[in-house]
Amino acid sequence: MNMSFLQELFNNITQRDALLRRRNSEDVTPDHAHMANACQALLESDGEASSIALASRALSLYARLDDEQKRRFFERLAQEFTADPEQIDTAYAAYHETRDIRHLQTLFNVCEPRRQELLRRLNLASGGTYELVRMREDLLRMMDDSGDLDAINADFIHLFGSWFNRGFLVLKRIDWNTPASILEKIIRYEAVHEIHDWNDLRRRLDARDRRCFAFFHPAIGDEPLIFVEVALHKGLPKQIQPILEGHRHDLDDPLSADTAAFFGISNCQTGLRGISFGNFLIKQVVQELKQELPQLRHFVTLSPVPGFRQWLEQHYVEETGKLPDDAQQALSLLDTPDWHETPEQEERLKAVVKPLAAHYLLHEKNRRGLPLNPVARFHLGNGASLHRVNWLGDVSRKGLKQSAGLMVNYLYALDDIERNHENYIANATVACSSEVRDLGRRARKMTKGETVK
Amino acid sequence: MNMSFLQELFNNITQRDALLRRRNSEDVTPDHAHMANACQALLESDGEASSIALASRALSLYARLDDEQKRRFFERLAQEFTADPEQIDTAYAAYHETRDIRHLQTLFNVCEPRRQELLRRLNLASGGTYELVRMREDLLRMMDDSGDLDAINADFIHLFGSWFNRGFLVLKRIDWNTPASILEKIIRYEAVHEIHDWNDLRRRLDARDRRCFAFFHPAIGDEPLIFVEVALHKGLPKQIQPILEGHRHDLDDPLSADTAAFFGISNCQTGLRGISFGNFLIKQVVQELKQELPQLRHFVTLSPVPGFRQWLEQHYVEETGKLPDDAQQALSLLDTPDWHETPEQEERLKAVVKPLAAHYLLHEKNRRGLPLNPVARFHLGNGASLHRVNWLGDVSRKGLKQSAGLMVNYLYALDDIERNHENYIANATVACSSEVRDLGRRARKMTKGETVK
Amino acid sequence: MNMSFLQELFNNITQRDALLRRRNSEDVTPDHAHMANACQALLESDGEASSIALASRALSLYARLDDEQKRRFFERLAQEFTADPEQIDTAYAAYHETRDIRHLQTLFNVCEPRRQELLRRLNLASGGTYELVRMREDLLRMMDDSGDLDAINADFIHLFGSWFNRGFLVLKRIDWNTPASILEKIIRYEAVHEIHDWNDLRRRLDARDRRCFAFFHPAIGDEPLIFVEVALHKGLPKQIQPILEGHRHDLDDPLSADTAAFFGISNCQTGLRGISFGNFLIKQVVQELKQELPQLRHFVTLSPVPGFRQWLEQHYVEETGKLPDDAQQALSLLDTPDWHETPEQEERLKAVVKPLAAHYLLHEKNRRGLPLNPVARFHLGNGASLHRVNWLGDVSRKGLKQSAGLMVNYLYALDDIERNHENYIANATVACSSEVRDLGRRARKMTKGETVK
Amino acid sequence: MNMSFLQELFNNITQRDALLRRRNSEDVTPDHAHMANACQALLESDGEASSIALASRALSLYARLDDEQKRRFFERLAQEFTADPEQIDTAYAAYHETRDIRHLQTLFNVCEPRRQELLRRLNLASGGTYELVRMREDLLRMMDDSGDLDAINADFIHLFGSWFNRGFLVLKRIDWNTPASILEKIIRYEAVHEIHDWNDLRRRLDARDRRCFAFFHPAIGDEPLIFVEVALHKGLPKQIQPILEGHRHDLDDPLSADTAAFFGISNCQTGLRGISFGNFLIKQVVQELKQELPQLRHFVTLSPVPGFRQWLEQHYVEETGKLPDDAQQALSLLDTPDWHETPEQEERLKAVVKPLAAHYLLHEKNRRGLPLNPVARFHLGNGASLHRVNWLGDVSRKGLKQSAGLMVNYLYALDDIERNHENYIANATVACSSEVRDLGRRARKMTKGETVK
Repeated sequence: MNMSFLQELFNNITQRDALLRRRNSEDVTPDHAHMANACQALLESDGEASSIALASRALSLYARLDDEQKRRFFERLAQEFTADPEQIDTAYAAYHETRDIRHLQTLFNVCEPRRQELLRRLNLASGGTYELVRMREDLLRMMDDSGDLDAINADFIHLFGSWFNRGFLVLKRIDWNTPASILEKIIRYEAVHEIHDWNDLRRRLDARDRRCFAFFHPAIGDEPLIFVEVALHKGLPKQIQPILEGHRHDLDDPLSADTAAFFGISNCQTGLRGISFGNFLIKQVVQELKQELPQLRHFVTLSPVPGFRQWLEQHYVEETGKLPDDAQQALSLLDTPDWHETPEQEERLKAVVKPLAAHYLLHEKNRRGLPLNPVARFHLGNGASLHRVNWLGDVSRKGLKQSAGLMVNYLYALDDIERNHENYIANATVACSSEVRDLGRRARKMTKGETVK
Repeated sequence: MNMSFLQELFNNITQRDALLRRRNSEDVTPDHAHMANACQALLESDGEASSIALASRALSLYARLDDEQKRRFFERLAQEFTADPEQIDTAYAAYHETRDIRHLQTLFNVCEPRRQELLRRLNLASGGTYELVRMREDLLRMMDDSGDLDAINADFIHLFGSWFNRGFLVLKRIDWNTPASILEKIIRYEAVHEIHDWNDLRRRLDARDRRCFAFFHPAIGDEPLIFVEVALHKGLPKQIQPILEGHRHDLDDPLSADTAAFFGISNCQTGLRGISFGNFLIKQVVQELKQELPQLRHFVTLSPVPGFRQWLEQHYVEETGKLPDDAQQALSLLDTPDWHETPEQEERLKAVVKPLAAHYLLHEKNRRGLPLNPVARFHLGNGASLHRVNWLGDVSRKGLKQSAGLMVNYLYALDDIERNHENYIANATVACSSEVRDLGRRARKMTKGETVK
Repeated sequence: MNMSFLQELFNNITQRDALLRRRNSEDVTPDHAHMANACQALLESDGEASSIALASRALSLYARLDDEQKRRFFERLAQEFTADPEQIDTAYAAYHETRDIRHLQTLFNVCEPRRQELLRRLNLASGGTYELVRMREDLLRMMDDSGDLDAINADFIHLFGSWFNRGFLVLKRIDWNTPASILEKIIRYEAVHEIHDWNDLRRRLDARDRRCFAFFHPAIGDEPLIFVEVALHKGLPKQIQPILEGHRHDLDDPLSADTAAFFGISNCQTGLRGISFGNFLIKQVVQELKQELPQLRHFVTLSPVPGFRQWLEQHYVEETGKLPDDAQQALSLLDTPDWHETPEQEERLKAVVKPLAAHYLLHEKNRRGLPLNPVARFHLGNGASLHRVNWLGDVSRKGLKQSAGLMVNYLYALDDIERNHENYIANATVACSSEVRDLGRRARKMTKGETVK
Repeated sequence: MNMSFLQELFNNITQRDALLRRRNSEDVTPDHAHMANACQALLESDGEASSIALASRALSLYARLDDEQKRRFFERLAQEFTADPEQIDTAYAAYHETRDIRHLQTLFNVCEPRRQELLRRLNLASGGTYELVRMREDLLRMMDDSGDLDAINADFIHLFGSWFNRGFLVLKRIDWNTPASILEKIIRYEAVHEIHDWNDLRRRLDARDRRCFAFFHPAIGDEPLIFVEVALHKGLPKQIQPILEGHRHDLDDPLSADTAAFFGISNCQTGLRGISFGNFLIKQVVQELKQELPQLRHFVTLSPVPGFRQWLEQHYVEETGKLPDDAQQALSLLDTPDWHETPEQEERLKAVVKPLAAHYLLHEKNRRGLPLNPVARFHLGNGASLHRVNWLGDVSRKGLKQSAGLMVNYLYALDDIERNHENYIANATVACSSEVRDLGRRARKMTKGETVK
């Protein structure tokens, strides 16, 4: 009686469908064939009235597939929901003859895999957008070297690029007044510095010296796409542990801070991998913060150096002879448990590791000639500069293991951001402070004139 | 001081740009060449950090172009922002040889006109989505038989189809508590029965016996995409005038109505022509109404019959001999001013015109075999049935001129909607009541056995 | 079925009640006796479960009374719903003997007229608060010299003072995004400079150079209590007409204004007369404006001088001999129609009227020793100073008739506001600029050394 | 720079004040004298412009007082901020002579303790309402038999009765989408069945079979006043433990429930003790639930019987001879740990305790002739009936200790609620089901004809 109209519509369709199915086989668990049929029916519908119901049916079938059936469904998607070779041949022939714009348009249309229209139609279902994000999460998990599923992934990227266009994203502040249903996702998705429980979360959101912002998409409601955590600070922070431990008693009034430090950016949806939001997020958050707290002077990050310790091992521990003996010996101290608590060991390491970190960040490049370190690539690509390397910036187990305990400040300086960005894009130039440059030089001397790219 | 970060970014870019321009020519009004350059720069940007500023610049340049420059810009879009023939040839050759999925993907990618990426990037600008809708509005105005601009239109349709996917639309009730900024748009966009002023609007939104709903898109804020006006009624309404005149004193409590009559659906954005929302809107509104007013039994329209009077003229007035003499004479009364106020004339006309209207709606088809009347096509395509032809349903000048004063009720009957829809899609079957069918038969007899398609 | 629980409760009671009534007299229009009975029943109820229904019944009975019955009901309220003399005598005797705090409390309780508890209980009904505001509106209309109804008025003031405590008021910005249901009330309630229609309203709310704020009370929803209109300006405005005519092309960006001019404060609820909000409103609006537009330097009013023209007539036109002959003659020009459009006449008047206006505002006092002019009392009492007298500030018919065409700027200077306020309260000192003081001196000289109070 | 206007005003005042203070004594902790002075200054202010700042100052002084100083401040409030005996004598004399309404009004005014005006003015401060609620919390804690502070308490009750009038309360649903800042208060304030942590809370709010509603007051924002927890159920629930353990798998769709069981009502603000909201809350929640879930048939409570076990001890354990020997022996089993887990013991107890519980609830009265049990008084006073006594309804330690493990269903039957209420108010009649009445009779027989009041 109170049942919704569309619900009824849907029920009508599925009841009939169920009857049909039952005649053949009693109440079977759905498999890739059911799913492929449902997709076929959706594509053959007129795209309007009944399509919503058909889209809902297909998505709910999909949800009941096990992994094996999902994989087989993806394979069918790749092979069967593609474009028609004959149509392509015909369209290409016509285009090739005339080279005119209308034949090109036809060629483009017939080249579009039918999967794309299928995905657009699945999106008609209520809640469909989020279901498709999760479908791609499945897909990414199942992709392998064979590359058969790459084409489907390309379709997702193509559509998500449109749907999650920055123009459609909504920035929201996250704080203790945020609904619990969203906050529990912040706990779950925090990827950089784990949030242990609700009390820990509460400290992370303490309005006296914390801010947190997330991007949301109107069609997927309460699910954050990405969020960033900010600490308000007097001066640039050097260490992450005091920040994670909670409110600092020297800062009871956010208006007395001069620095906003971004200490964690977490992507929430695996299914949106490769659709980039982070750069927009940082810039919009800087804008929000300047509005609320006009006295802020510095916008920096407090970032880890993932991969540095591993790089160090490969280049200077396993491969000996590149460093003077005492430096080489110092490096071996990294294997000593709790070395950072022994001042003498810590000092010896600092003298060697800090310069090498500057060198790593400034000069080690990947195949495309960009910094090897992914965090550096992200911030430098946004126009930030490499401002400071902080010794013992993160003495957690994870921090010691990944970054040899270092944390880096990347600086977002308003006046330089565009020039940095352009130099980086054009020439892969890494903007850095003189302090970091000096550190890098020290590393070169230490490595006895080894040629640096 | 309080200026926004992105604003500053943008200013930096445009100031430099302005300097550049000034060197060449003093403060010129922008033309298609500036615009094309701005688009080129946007496409060459890295798609991230600075793209927002570049997109804003391009859109604000566009807004300053006059019509001639816009047309020339569109022509350059068509010719210069297209795909690369050589890349297409190469990709096709590879695909043709292997027929494999990855080469198809490449072919699809290189066939995509660069315009599409351009439009996606323009959408990065704040407010960009709405600017693009208005850009297409310009484009539609400028399209002509030459067809040069059709390809750009196709790009817009492709992208708008994704962006305005029904899954992204938000239904909102419009009433006297709605912000004035939205209500003034309802006044402006009402296309079926004009709203004269704010007092008239207030009557249209009288909560005692009216409802109004609109679709919005999160990225274009306060601009409605389409809206529908509903009158609550006891029994099916026959005439539009009493509804337009305002609240009827027999219905002070919406809970005493048994019928919801849709009497106006207005598309608001010319720039979204061809992106269909109407069918989704009607169905979602039925759902909303059933939730609020569970006692409602009938969902119908009170719709005009545009084109009917003209059809009547062409087939039975200009071309004589198809009707018996007295019917023919009666028809000529349509030219008498105010014929509907003379009972004798009105009765004579009714006997002839009503059956012919049923015939027109049931049997007159277009080239695709679907009903000639566009309103009929819309509702029948949605699964409604042709329920009743109302004599003197609209005695306004417009109503007499277009529809010979008739209004039609299309019935949305929950249990039949899907079957009607399928029969209509599969066989172009027009679902109708026995009353309308009888009327149609009477027309056939009247036309002396003339063969009907 | 969908009927609300409380509705049913209420129905039960009223049905029974209706039955009861019908036995005595068939379906009579309610009179003061019904109303008094309903109030009695409400007072006798336990104040909880059924009181809501009884309160609703009483209020809906009241709404159906005609003015004569309302007056008689008020008279009964005054006489019958009072305190019990015997209880008072007993309580006083006990208090007088002991002078202790508990007997005082008892005395206070028994002195409270039963009307106050009645009003508190009527407030239980949904929407009751607003109904009571309107009941007082009736009361104020009916109060006369006899003073019988003054006691009821005192009860209302006592309760409204608590209920409409500033701590319970909510400030909201009014603009073109405000619901139409509120905006139509702004049109209706504007008391200073009439708003003619929706187009006029739209100009008044033009966000480029206007602001408008209103106080609301949570329990009376969409009904504004008081609102203030603000024009953003470069420099202090002198004239009201350019402001009323709509947006000025010299100010497209609110950030370029340096002055906020309050040009209209309208109380909306007659029933709340004497419950003051205006001073809180102005101060909170100054705060809001400083937040949004930190570059604002001056907060002033552009205020009429109601009563000035009348005062002028009485003291210097009817009563001759106080002014030099030429000044006396000049004054008579005020009766010439459109004198302000004749430069020669206007100049002669200006020389006489402007000084007299300064004199009037600075030195004419009421019985309590405060400025005679009510607008001056309001702003000076708030701590503003009398900053400038603007000749030809309001050349509307109303402006010429009431204020001899003058408008005054009262200045709210942050650093002086408290001192001004204290001096005003303590010594009735009128804070003013040297310009106004000089004008006042000129008036004294003109009036040939007449002693000024 | 960005500091608020009122903030500055306040600072001006307090700075001056601070200067003043510092001259006498260096930076002292505030005491009752400072506080009394601040209150005096507030009362002497004009009630408008500067009063907000003075109210804020007084409240922030209060917050810094220790308990001893608070108590002394309250004593001064009682003695010094009272009414003027001479004014009372004069006003009474005048009233006594004339007995007229205006002299009564004067008498009432002069009898009002100055404390009441003080409290109204303190309420002007931003956040003042909540501060006053907490001030009364302090007061209640400090009240003792001496009764000196009773008068202040009476003032609070008088004002809170107006301010927290049901017409000003807002009902809000509490669920997992509620802001965390509110939810943590639900955890803290739950008084009936403790909520252990956030996971426990999440279970309590599971939308499949739970509802929770709270009353809020607009002026105290996020602080709930009272809330009620509801379990949706098929049939009337007998036991609390399954409900507290979380979602029951037999009820995944709230639309399949036929019963709403209120299992916890918690008052949140000690400072509002005696201002009753509970009855309004239950009735409004019934209304909300009927709207959302029209299929609900039964509205009941699942309530504890606090005091029953103690009553049992006093009347039948300590005082022997009233029960047959076997019953007497059975009762002694209550002291056996975990008796409810031994079927034989549990059965023996059930036969004795259940009838005695019915007897206790039906016939044991307090001095005012109303049921001794406070929970029974509350629900019966609301018009509910005593529907069922559930054996082993609460086997928690607390449940066994207070209620001998019993839980009671009180039934809110729409058609009977008003009659029950009236009979209860008029004659203290306890409405009950025949099942409970039979149980009561069995108790009488068991107690061998003992006379029951």
